[in-house]
Amino acid sequence: MKKTGKFITIEGTDGSGKSTQIELLKDYFNEINKEAVFVREPGSTEIGEKIRSLILDTKNTAMTDETEALLYAACRIQLVKEVILPSLEEGKIVVCDRYVDSSIAYQGFGRGLGQEKIESINSFAIEKCMPDITLFFNLPPEKGILRKNNQKKLDRIELEGLSFHNKVYNGYLSLAASNKDRIKSIDASLPVEQVFLDVKNIIDAMR
Amino acid sequence: MKKTGKFITIEGTDGSGKSTQIELLKDYFNEINKEAVFVREPGSTEIGEKIRSLILDTKNTAMTDETEALLYAACRIQLVKEVILPSLEEGKIVVCDRYVDSSIAYQGFGRGLGQEKIESINSFAIEKCMPDITLFFNLPPEKGILRKNNQKKLDRIELEGLSFHNKVYNGYLSLAASNKDRIKSIDASLPVEQVFLDVKNIIDAMR
Repeated sequence: MKKTGKFITIEGTDGSGKSTQIELLKDYFNEINKEAVFVREPGSTEIGEKIRSLILDTKNTAMTDETEALLYAACRIQLVKEVILPSLEEGKIVVCDRYVDSSIAYQGFGRGLGQEKIESINSFAIEKCMPDITLFFNLPPEKGILRKNNQKKLDRIELEGLSFHNKVYNGYLSLAASNKDRIKSIDASLPVEQVFLDVKNIIDAMR
Repeated sequence: MKKTGKFITIEGTDGSGKSTQIELLKDYFNEINKEAVFVREPGSTEIGEKIRSLILDTKNTAMTDETEALLYAACRIQLVKEVILPSLEEGKIVVCDRYVDSSIAYQGFGRGLGQEKIESINSFAIEKCMPDITLFFNLPPEKGILRKNNQKKLDRIELEGLSFHNKVYNGYLSLAASNKDRIKSIDASLPVEQVFLDVKNIIDAMR
């Protein structure tokens, strides 16, 4: 089956304001009567949510970096085959909060497993389904962490220190530099409304 | 750290008598005062057992073949890093009930994902830790299924039909043919005692 919809992924370090912008995007698609499917990683399928609990549970301190990377990949391909591909084949817009770039940034750069290894274990997803466009909310981690500290409960990944999150951020910068056509970098330090104007301009241009 | 122990894996289709032979091998190592660590896949770590429940739960009918393959790989590398490698570094014998050959046979051949893909998502395990020797209990699936039907409760993989299990069996035959030094094929249709004599001969020869 041919994919006729559009696949948009949302990326950025923790606290970069992804969730707020996704809510604004939902409202915008409603306003202009555009049907869109919103999903998040890891999760958004019954099996994926079970894998999500395993990955993010703060009790699972013994989890190896490689196990973590493979669980994200398992979750991802379940979502691709169960939700993303069928929706794209029906001509829908799919917006996914985090996708394979997250694994490259967090497990490849942050955990130090390397980009090539992460691409190799994600080959099922990469071959079947790459985003048409990726919005990268660009915010240095020290600023994002200030925002996240206001949250009540951080998960196993968010609890990592600043040096980990800086490696992740550098991973994103490297991905953005080598995928200029696909990855649109947005200055996420600006006020929410200004950031969303940038989002809207990119989304409007792709239709 | 150098691996000074010996890594033995046990392979075969369902009902090929692996469990019985593993019990006999445990007794034998006790008899000759040889310390050995026995583990099984998927599982044998706290995180691995949680992944095991996900994989084998008969309720998870929506699980894609790719998700299944990645979950096995996630479970495997957790076991390698948490138990197998540290034990081998201490000079111990490690006996693992199923390992990467199972993934190639079941997901690569049985599910049809292909050997190369399975090797690629298992690269973490393959690069860090391949078996010194693999005992393949060779029994055509139609005979194995007769044995398994006496069991009370079959898991999600065992419940697959004969055509699936025949593909798995052909996968094993192909692996055995191309890894003659490592994979020792044992005629598992013989009486239990005769099969164990073959096991013992192979184990004694490797010490």
